[in-house]
This record gives sequence, C-alpha cells and structure tokens, in this order.
Amino acid sequence: MKNFSFQNPTRIHFGKGMIARIAEEIPQTANILITYGGGSIKKNGTLQQVREALKDHASITEFGGIEPNPSYETLMEAVAVAKQEGIDYLLAVGGGSVIDGTKFIAAAIPFEGDPWTILSDNAEIHQAVPAGNVLTLPATGSESNSGSVVTRRATNDKLAFLSPKVYPQFTVLDPETTYSLPLGQSANGVVDAFAHVMEQYLTIRENAPIQDRYAESLLITLIEQGPIVLTQPEDYETRATIMWAANQALNGLIGLGVPHDWSTHMIGHEITALFGLDHAQTLAIVLPSVMHIMREDKASKLLQYAERVWGIREGNDQEKIDSAINKTRAFFEQMGIKTRLSDYGIQESAITDLVDQLKRHKMTALGENQNITPEVATRILRHAA
Amino acid sequence: MKNFSFQNPTRIHFGKGMIARIAEEIPQTANILITYGGGSIKKNGTLQQVREALKDHASITEFGGIEPNPSYETLMEAVAVAKQEGIDYLLAVGGGSVIDGTKFIAAAIPFEGDPWTILSDNAEIHQAVPAGNVLTLPATGSESNSGSVVTRRATNDKLAFLSPKVYPQFTVLDPETTYSLPLGQSANGVVDAFAHVMEQYLTIRENAPIQDRYAESLLITLIEQGPIVLTQPEDYETRATIMWAANQALNGLIGLGVPHDWSTHMIGHEITALFGLDHAQTLAIVLPSVMHIMREDKASKLLQYAERVWGIREGNDQEKIDSAINKTRAFFEQMGIKTRLSDYGIQESAITDLVDQLKRHKMTALGENQNITPEVATRILRHAA
Repeated sequence: MKNFSFQNPTRIHFGKGMIARIAEEIPQTANILITYGGGSIKKNGTLQQVREALKDHASITEFGGIEPNPSYETLMEAVAVAKQEGIDYLLAVGGGSVIDGTKFIAAAIPFEGDPWTILSDNAEIHQAVPAGNVLTLPATGSESNSGSVVTRRATNDKLAFLSPKVYPQFTVLDPETTYSLPLGQSANGVVDAFAHVMEQYLTIRENAPIQDRYAESLLITLIEQGPIVLTQPEDYETRATIMWAANQALNGLIGLGVPHDWSTHMIGHEITALFGLDHAQTLAIVLPSVMHIMREDKASKLLQYAERVWGIREGNDQEKIDSAINKTRAFFEQMGIKTRLSDYGIQESAITDLVDQLKRHKMTALGENQNITPEVATRILRHAA
Repeated sequence: MKNFSFQNPTRIHFGKGMIARIAEEIPQTANILITYGGGSIKKNGTLQQVREALKDHASITEFGGIEPNPSYETLMEAVAVAKQEGIDYLLAVGGGSVIDGTKFIAAAIPFEGDPWTILSDNAEIHQAVPAGNVLTLPATGSESNSGSVVTRRATNDKLAFLSPKVYPQFTVLDPETTYSLPLGQSANGVVDAFAHVMEQYLTIRENAPIQDRYAESLLITLIEQGPIVLTQPEDYETRATIMWAANQALNGLIGLGVPHDWSTHMIGHEITALFGLDHAQTLAIVLPSVMHIMREDKASKLLQYAERVWGIREGNDQEKIDSAINKTRAFFEQMGIKTRLSDYGIQESAITDLVDQLKRHKMTALGENQNITPEVATRILRHAA
C-alpha cells in the first residue's frame, strides 16, 4: 500500500425524509443561493421539500438552468448573481452537474484573478463559499468529494479541478428523490459509478487487499442491482443501494494508497466536448476498449476481476480476460447504454480530432503507467469504433 | 437500509515516515500533553520520532503510565496535570487504551461537574480539548472514531462513552511502529478487529449489500493476513493491511444503516473487569458462543457468513452454521488466543457474578433484538465454559 493522507469532512444524511435536516445544517441568518438544473426538482417535489425545510431561513435566492456538463458560461452568470446578492451559502439541489457547477461557483466567487485559470491552469483555491447539497441523481460521487468538472462551450474544453476547499459541508441522500428519474439517467448513473470504481481498481497490482475487495463489493453490487432499477424504479431498497454505491465509488475511500487510471474519463471527456454524448455513454464506449488495449499492463488485475467479480474460472488467462471484457460490455448494454462510437453516429475519421483535443489538454501520458500516449489513445478509440 | 447521519472528520496520515506530519497538524504555539502507556514507544523509537517531529513546538509535557484497559484513576491524574500546565492540545501515542484514555482526558478537562458521570450516566459533553494520535497497536479503531472505554478499578466498572466532540483531529498510522509489538498483542488486535466487524454484520438481515460486502472484505482479509503477522512480524505490507483493516472495522462506515449487536463486547467487558483478561481474549471466548446461542435469530446472516467468508457449501443449514462457528473458533485459536473460560482458569461458578455485573450496568437487553437477557447471557457464558 502506498502512503496517503485523507480526510473527508462531508456530513452525510441518508434516507427518506432527510431533506428536513438541511434546516439545521445551514445557518438561519445565511444568505443562501439555491442552485439547480432543468427544473425536474420542481416537478418531483424535491424543491418544495427544500423550501419547506428552509421556511425559517431569512434570505433565499434561486438560480436554475445549470446544464448537464455544466458550462463555465452559465456558472459565471451564477457567480455574478451571487456577488450581487451577497451570497454566503450555496445549496445545490440536483445531480453531479449541478453539484460540480456549484463547487466552481463556490471557488469563483472569492477568487482573485480570472476564474477560468482554476480549470485551465490548476490555479490554487485559497477559499470558497461554504456549500451543501441535496442529491437527486446518484452517479458522480460529487456530493461528498472535492472534485468538479466544468465545460467551456466556446472552446470545447471539458476540464476538472480538485480542492479540499470545495468539499461539501453536508449532503442529503434521499433515495425517494430518484424515483422519478428517467431510466436513461438512472442507467447513466450506474455506469458512471461502475467506471469510477474500475478506474481506481483495474491498474497494476498493488498490495492493497482491502481496497481491492471494497472495489469488488461495489462492482458486484452495481451488477446485481443496476438492472433492477430499470424494471422497479420505485423499489426503495434498490434505489438506496445504488445511491450508496455511487457515493462510495468516488468519495476517496477505495482509491487510497493504490494506483489510478483515469484514462477512460479523460478520453470520454473529449467525446462529450466534441459530440455532446452523455458522460456515461462515453465511459461505456471507452472502458471496454481500455481494458482490451491495456490488457498486458493490467493482466494480473484483469484476471482477479474476471474471477472475483464475474466468477470466471474456465479457459486460459487470455480467454478469461476476453470473457471479463465481454461481460463488462454486455452489462453496459443491458443497462441500455451502447458501447461503440458508431452506435452514436461517430465516424472513425473523428478519432484524429478527439486525440488532438487530448494533446491540446496535455493528456498525453495517461494511465497508471503514464503510457497511454496519443498513439495508444488512438488505438483505444479505433478499437471502440 | 435504515436512515443514518454520518461524518468522520479525522484526517488520516498512513504509511512509513508519516509521523513527521504531526508537525503541521499541531499548532506550534500549542501547550501539548503527550500521553502514552508503559514505555514501549520509548524502546521502539516511536517517541523519539514524535519528539523530533515536534522539535519546533514550544511547550511539551509528557504523561506516561496509562494502562491497558485505561483506569479512571490514572486518567484523572492526567486531567490534574493538564489543568495545572494549561494544556490545550493532547497527543496520544500508543494503542487503543492510550487513545481511549486520552479521549476521556480531553472531555474531562473542561467538564463541569463530576467527570465520572460521563461514563456512569452518559452525561453530555459540550466541549473537549483537541487531540490527535500516533497509533502503535492496530485493534480498536479508536484512532478515528468517537468512542472510548474506561475502567474504574475501585468498583470493577468498565464503561463506554461516545461523543462527536472527541473525534481525533488526526491520526498517524505508520505500520513500521507495529513491528516490535509482542505477538500476543498483534494477535489480540486482529481478533478485536474481527469481532468489531462481526458485531456490525452478524445480526438480522437488513437490505444493505454494500455494508455486508465491506464487512466480508474485512473478515476475509483478517483471516488471510492475520496469521502471517505471527510468522513475519516485519512484513510491511501485511502490517499495513492489518492496520488498515482494524481502522476500517470501527471507523463507523460498515455499521451505517444496519442493526448492531454489541453483546460480545458488553459481556466481554465484565470478564475483563472481574478477571483481568485481555480484551481480545474475552471476545474470543464470547463471540463463538453468541453465534451458537443466537443461531436462530441470526440464521440468515450466519449462512451468508458461512458461504461468503468461509466458502462453506456442503451440508444442511444447521451443519453450515456449525461449521462456520467452528471455523471462527479455530481462527482465534490459530491466532494463539484460547476460546473457553476454563482455558483462563475461570470456573462455571463465576458466571453468576459476571451476569450480576451485567445487571448492575443495565445490560439486560443486549443484541440486535434486545433479547439477550441475563438468562440468555448466562446460557452464552455456560456454552463458553
């Protein structure tokens, strides 16, 4: 196990009815900005529950319209509103995009200089406005981690930043808020969480049996429960398990002291930036191909994954690895998410543009061995055609 | 899954050389009290590393002699020293007893009224002196949780308290500090951690597949790696895994949203209070017997445990359960820890005294179903004779 330092300060309120807890989490005198997305929280009653919980709070402003893959342009509008209104507490109500966007808003409000440099140059964040959230789409883990991904529409840049200053102070995970999610979004969340686990697990072998088994716990659970969501969307226990799995997949725990390989996310980000695919669709395309092209580096872990997660015991090593990759792809397809670029109308000729984007974003040495060069990324994308 | 609220604010520094990090964790101007136990940290160089890390800190007082099963009497001496010296930061260097004791000291220093009521009456703790720790004996999980157990020698009371105010601000987990532990203490730690997991896992079935699989991850890892410690005490990776397992076993995570059964600990505490056995010895005696006597309540989970943790697939349900209990007992014995009261010279005639102690401490409705009455506890202890 490698050395690490870790602290996750976010308080978690989990379960039905827990939205009421935000009344105690946010100071009554706070000048609150509630941020949200396209308005589904109005239809499904979540926003009403939030307003009810905050009925004794003095000052509330609302800012809606944060998009999936939240845009720098929209978020800077929220920053302007927040500055004008003297906002000193942010409450994100929504999925990973709203929460990611709100982390950026929290950092940008007090930032001195051009806030874009937070994303473009990893400019250090010295302070951020305190924020909490009510999660309505389990997927990204953003509700209790320190990361955020923002897209600048004008330039097709989809970039991430990390800062301990943007850890949410609290998150409410009420599985009932997810009943009304479109099935496609529910499926996206399962695949996103699955990819997060794989990217902290499927690397070179490190002697970390607990992290390995925790990761396998999450993968097995997502494989077992993910499909149930598609047929029983109002089954509380399944929704609760998926919500907890997505949280655990990227709250930092399973990745402590082990190598990571975020190449699937980095390559996927470029597909979203150029072609607008859902984040999870890009992961479903790229991950099986990363597994195939990097099978020598990852052989030992691929065999462990094949045996422990899928119960594969027949065949030689290469056959076991092929079977594990095929089962992974089949799982994504079972969740209703296609796994080939061509399924989304993206031609092989576009691969050059995607790899050029990676180069422009300095993503030229990805993977746990930093050997996913633009040439290797090209092979990964070709295999995913 | 049941509703829960959870926050674990302790920062963890894990790995060789990480003791140096305490320099940044503790304010340079703090008036520090270093607490420790019997002096093994002087022999193995840990105290020297701590002093070196704090060489630029102005004010350091040391208080040694905190016993295994830390005594209220000794801890109150430390409280007197701390008050006299104006201590405003506590640094525990040692195992669970030193850390538990230091939590009590932290709460008792500013406590108004009789500090004993913290233990005897669960008196509320409004504030505590900030504290961190350097762990040298992985076992109790106390290094990053909010619990503490203290014994009053004069009256044979071994009692626990919990408070979010005593969460350590940081913990250093350096596996190298554990190389010089006596094998018996190393084995005790493995059994203690194993029991902690079982007490949050082996209950009635609750729909919480992630918590179940996390718990099984820890159990399998302890069974696999525990015996290695006894033959290769300076194997870094094994020590690191055991240290992380013991931390994870009782940092709160695996117990979220599920029933608990702490009867093994509660009954075990009385054995220590009356007969002075090591804490882990009492768990090794009581746990297999709780599994046997409560086998109907726990049948579903016992079968899951048998299959997933021990790979037992042969026989009918009762045979599988018997096999799982036997394997659990054999594991403790393999770790060098005897599992019968008679192995420690405790006669069956003492059982009445032990159960009277439980009654005196109001432990008359233990277990996840609150049905471990004094009569059932008597059967558990008789089966453990």
